[in-house]
Amino acid sequence: MTLPQTPALATDCVVFDPLGRVLLIRRGHEPCAGKHALPGGFVKIGETVASACRREVKEETGIEVAKISLVGVYSDIDRDPRGHIVSVAFMTELTNETPPRVGSDARSAEWVDMGDIDLAFDPHAKAKLRIKDAR
Amino acid sequence: MTLPQTPALATDCVVFDPLGRVLLIRRGHEPCAGKHALPGGFVKIGETVASACRREVKEETGIEVAKISLVGVYSDIDRDPRGHIVSVAFMTELTNETPPRVGSDARSAEWVDMGDIDLAFDPHAKAKLRIKDAR
Repeated sequence: MTLPQTPALATDCVVFDPLGRVLLIRRGHEPCAGKHALPGGFVKIGETVASACRREVKEETGIEVAKISLVGVYSDIDRDPRGHIVSVAFMTELTNETPPRVGSDARSAEWVDMGDIDLAFDPHAKAKLRIKDAR
Repeated sequence: MTLPQTPALATDCVVFDPLGRVLLIRRGHEPCAGKHALPGGFVKIGETVASACRREVKEETGIEVAKISLVGVYSDIDRDPRGHIVSVAFMTELTNETPPRVGSDARSAEWVDMGDIDLAFDPHAKAKLRIKDAR
């Protein structure tokens, strides 16, 4: 059976360290190359959304996350310039300070104070809200 | 830009009436024709997940829902025999007793007591859990 065409499905993770900083990457590719973003990416057919979330965090930052909690589902039509992409956002809090290492699709991966955040995708205020929701 | 192939995206709604009953349809088509299911369906490209949820409830049962709250995201690989379909579930509680009317894709639409529920899709226990999560 052919399934209908639906929006593309992605996932993001809001990872806090014990100091309350947020794990961000700088995007390596367009769109928004060089801008901060939450680690995340597209969900593959055959993996759960939670598995995709853990996989993307690991691939992009080297950090392994275990228990993740659902934050929200972001589906505004114009939130991503590539097309209609729905993102399922999760959050987790690490108990240890863990240095990230740069992985796939990222130019850098770093811990960033909440006040300094200016994210790729979604309107600016909404992306910040997404992180504040997660706390 | 071509977006990657990702799981198909659907939405379901757990609608409670003031008596605590749940709004269910009986499916008109295969798979699971004749079985109870939550009203819902596929998200269209160009609509938010919440809009899709309200549209599907209206189309299948004639009932208009306004404020809906996120319950969970269900993405197990084998939850739907048609392929990998991820469902975003919302819930709402109606303040008035409202008789449903049968609409598209449904054979019937009715208010059902929690104890009598045996749903299409997801393993049985999980689908019930989804409704209990919503309360």
